Amino acid sequence: MKSLVLLSGGVDSATCLAMKVAEYGRDQVMALNVFYGQRHSKEMESARRIASHYGVELEEYDLKTIMQGSDCALLSDSGKEIEHGSYDQQKGRAENGTVSTYVPFRNGLMLSIAAARALIHGCSEICYGAHADDAAGSAYPDCTPEFYRSMDSAIYEGSGHVLHLSAPLIDMNKAGVVREGLRLGVPYEMTWSCYEGGDEPCHRCGTCIDRENAFKANGTVDPLCR
Amino acid sequence: MKSLVLLSGGVDSATCLAMKVAEYGRDQVMALNVFYGQRHSKEMESARRIASHYGVELEEYDLKTIMQGSDCALLSDSGKEIEHGSYDQQKGRAENGTVSTYVPFRNGLMLSIAAARALIHGCSEICYGAHADDAAGSAYPDCTPEFYRSMDSAIYEGSGHVLHLSAPLIDMNKAGVVREGLRLGVPYEMTWSCYEGGDEPCHRCGTCIDRENAFKANGTVDPLCR
Repeated sequence: MKSLVLLSGGVDSATCLAMKVAEYGRDQVMALNVFYGQRHSKEMESARRIASHYGVELEEYDLKTIMQGSDCALLSDSGKEIEHGSYDQQKGRAENGTVSTYVPFRNGLMLSIAAARALIHGCSEICYGAHADDAAGSAYPDCTPEFYRSMDSAIYEGSGHVLHLSAPLIDMNKAGVVREGLRLGVPYEMTWSCYEGGDEPCHRCGTCIDRENAFKANGTVDPLCR
Repeated sequence: MKSLVLLSGGVDSATCLAMKVAEYGRDQVMALNVFYGQRHSKEMESARRIASHYGVELEEYDLKTIMQGSDCALLSDSGKEIEHGSYDQQKGRAENGTVSTYVPFRNGLMLSIAAARALIHGCSEICYGAHADDAAGSAYPDCTPEFYRSMDSAIYEGSGHVLHLSAPLIDMNKAGVVREGLRLGVPYEMTWSCYEGGDEPCHRCGTCIDRENAFKANGTVDPLCR
């Protein structure tokens, strides 16, 4: 069993990588990072540090051209500001519930690239870090259990029944993800989540707030806040 | 209703485009061509001619880097020869039934790009030309009804319930596709199918043979053979 893990460089994907290394051994795990035109490349630098920490091969792809013209606030050429506050307080939602930082079909696109690369490398599994808090209230529809199940089926069928999709965090909230990662000794000081590209996290965007709360819920402090 | 059609430049996708233009009008249709490292760019030139014929906008993306390292015979750097004969006679199949010209998760990848572009352009449908002959015997598992249904569901869920996948040829064989296209006046002389990049079709590869037979079944001759 060889697994290819989508590694953005944030808390969730770093935890996925740790889980797969613990399960299969690092020789049976590789990682994939996809740049899609974010405001900064800090996540990618984090992905490189984390992959190096675990001694797994990291492949990188640049899909910026595919997101051209998107008004998603995460993207450097969207012209939008990042909204402050936790996801559940955000007002700038589209009619269908997606938040302003939803990137059009991003996870489907990343998982399709991962599926192609996994088949080329002889992997039988790809893995991504969708969890329950990102799915809540349709904020990120490509993190829901319904999307996960459909995409797993599409990958299994489209690969000729040789590849499966794993989403080991799908039933956890962010606090549960951090709990599992702390147990496994994930080097969270190497991760990056903040949507802004500053030297330090902004402590105001949705992902900063939710991340810090997840560490608090585990009775500890986010290492990026120390 | 605005539709984005995957347009490779071959018979099937040209027929899809004609069907959608007939259904919605050309102002509500756009086309997408994805290059993935084929041996030649003749299909892309055909896609441009066909899009121009119908007066629809064509977007092009180059995903060659994602297929690096694949041993698929369609790709210019695979080092493999194109096998001769109709698909149902081919011997060089993988254990799971896929033919040597199966490109790893190609349709899933193209459809994911199409989904992202469709959301950016405000389309509510994407369309691709999978048909029954390509799915037969697991030759191309990303053309089966099972893959289509799963991918439609993944696109619908992952887009926040705003986008659907249409595969209007899914229950037709190639002869049925050509029958529908002849009825609609598709300019098949502009299409290109042959896996080799010669000045004329090779008449020996799987796609040449199946295409020519489809015209014969309709009591006519492939315009590329006249």
